[in-house]
Amino acid sequence: MKRPAVRITDVAALAGVSAGTASKALNNTGQLSQDTRERVRRAAAQLGFTPDVRGRALSSGRTFTVALLTTDSSGRFSIPIMRGVEDVLSAGELATVLCDTRDDPLREQSYLRSMVARGVDGIVVTGRRTEPRPPIDVPLPVVYALAASTDPADASVIVDDAAGAAAVITHLRTLGRSRIAHITGPADHRSAVERAQAMSSSTLVGEPLFGEWSEQWGRQATDLVLRAHPDVDAITCGSDQIARGVCDRLRELGRAVPGEIAVTGYDNWPVMALASRPPLTSVDLRLEELGRRAANLLLDAIAGNPHHGVLELPAQLVPRESTLGA
Amino acid sequence: MKRPAVRITDVAALAGVSAGTASKALNNTGQLSQDTRERVRRAAAQLGFTPDVRGRALSSGRTFTVALLTTDSSGRFSIPIMRGVEDVLSAGELATVLCDTRDDPLREQSYLRSMVARGVDGIVVTGRRTEPRPPIDVPLPVVYALAASTDPADASVIVDDAAGAAAVITHLRTLGRSRIAHITGPADHRSAVERAQAMSSSTLVGEPLFGEWSEQWGRQATDLVLRAHPDVDAITCGSDQIARGVCDRLRELGRAVPGEIAVTGYDNWPVMALASRPPLTSVDLRLEELGRRAANLLLDAIAGNPHHGVLELPAQLVPRESTLGA
Repeated sequence: MKRPAVRITDVAALAGVSAGTASKALNNTGQLSQDTRERVRRAAAQLGFTPDVRGRALSSGRTFTVALLTTDSSGRFSIPIMRGVEDVLSAGELATVLCDTRDDPLREQSYLRSMVARGVDGIVVTGRRTEPRPPIDVPLPVVYALAASTDPADASVIVDDAAGAAAVITHLRTLGRSRIAHITGPADHRSAVERAQAMSSSTLVGEPLFGEWSEQWGRQATDLVLRAHPDVDAITCGSDQIARGVCDRLRELGRAVPGEIAVTGYDNWPVMALASRPPLTSVDLRLEELGRRAANLLLDAIAGNPHHGVLELPAQLVPRESTLGA
Repeated sequence: MKRPAVRITDVAALAGVSAGTASKALNNTGQLSQDTRERVRRAAAQLGFTPDVRGRALSSGRTFTVALLTTDSSGRFSIPIMRGVEDVLSAGELATVLCDTRDDPLREQSYLRSMVARGVDGIVVTGRRTEPRPPIDVPLPVVYALAASTDPADASVIVDDAAGAAAVITHLRTLGRSRIAHITGPADHRSAVERAQAMSSSTLVGEPLFGEWSEQWGRQATDLVLRAHPDVDAITCGSDQIARGVCDRLRELGRAVPGEIAVTGYDNWPVMALASRPPLTSVDLRLEELGRRAANLLLDAIAGNPHHGVLELPAQLVPRESTLGA
């Protein structure tokens, strides 16, 4: 038994907007508030409104699909970014195809050819590192997220790590800490270097300690810091994993966190930041917001208004017990 | 400048197979070895062979896309499963669309309508829990992975947790441990109950301790176990997070792992199992293999040969230092 088809005017009536506004909201065009778009989306879902995607694709030559190309096999960074991309695109009934290249150039080329053959509307390129990467060569709108394209004519959205690192230092100084050491990841990782430089511009005790993105390195480096600077009153870390190792080692040594030594992480990865004893003050990379921004830039490009250059999204301090106390 | 189009016969020649075999390998049909399929895929990638997907879709009415519908927003379970699905499907140039319902029934309905409207070839349904779930109602081939469908006529692939738990007990007995306690997650989670029951059928000291999937619960429960059974010589855990908490607490109490007390985790989640001190003997859920099996069942269903019932994939013991020692 077929129910009568739901029309866009039914959706508009339920959402309390005009049919034109409802159409804009569902197609993600025009200047509408997030609230209006959401109301229309809910109304469409409630009524079971199904835009005839294949019909639209055939008449317009578009397939209404966007690909998220990632080198991050773990999903640690790409899944939150994808959630953000979907937030924006699903309102317009665009499907997001996740393609995992596993950092294999052959696999990346194969995916790109397949996506072009499939006629996707656009591609968001992301990964697990922040190093700028060579642009991909496809005749489609492309936006880079997390790692910028090396071509300044491309549109990229990246995390402003310098802002995040500066926020950590300001936070610690506000709490009266002045003898601050820094432990971070490999010296050839851009994210480690950028965070360390932003912190070094303030007065750190000693040079930043570069090592691995691991808890074990955090524990080892804690001993190095305490030997060189016995009166340190804060240790900032380049990742939550390192910071967790620092907290564990300080506890083993009977040094109170944050009473004697405050500790900060970076990434705001719940698995680490919340399980740490004490829970970590950290810096949130705002990956979902990064995905939303990338999706909006891509929609503009698909609509014929491409952006150029690098948009930096400030990372955000999240204070917890490792600096504030219980 | 356009290069001459690469034909399937070029791919076949480079791979050293017949054109028919190359076609079967790329379309994932027929009975071919994994090695042959891989060789053809590599040859196709090397030559830049692009099947005309849209042409095929228009002529056949198919879009050559498979959707992975998941309730697991973190990607912890769905990303490895997706990798397995892609392993199988990408050889045949099918794209895998990841749809994250965020456990919201409204969002799930909306995705399903959208996927049906888009004419996808089939759907793999997965999640973050192992509880059987109600089937989805779509006129398409569907396979359930990790959580079975409650309809026995559907095809499901799930992890055999009883086999994994039994392997843990056998391993510990082989190592001479006999006074074994069990700490696990919530009593209303199927995965906690199944693992606990499989272990209880052997002789555990005391009842399984149900609590949370957290390191903190692992630490707390360790105290409870030691108070009730001071001579315990092994603690098995329902997750790696719990086991990590157990190891931390035992170290704080000066009890040697595994010298005095062996500890086992479950899930084989590298972030926890490898960072634990000592690294955890654990049980691998084989999520990628689960994805591969699900994809093969789905391909059969798409080809008109649907399977029925529940396929159980035994979880696999991975021994490490927490039972074997350094």
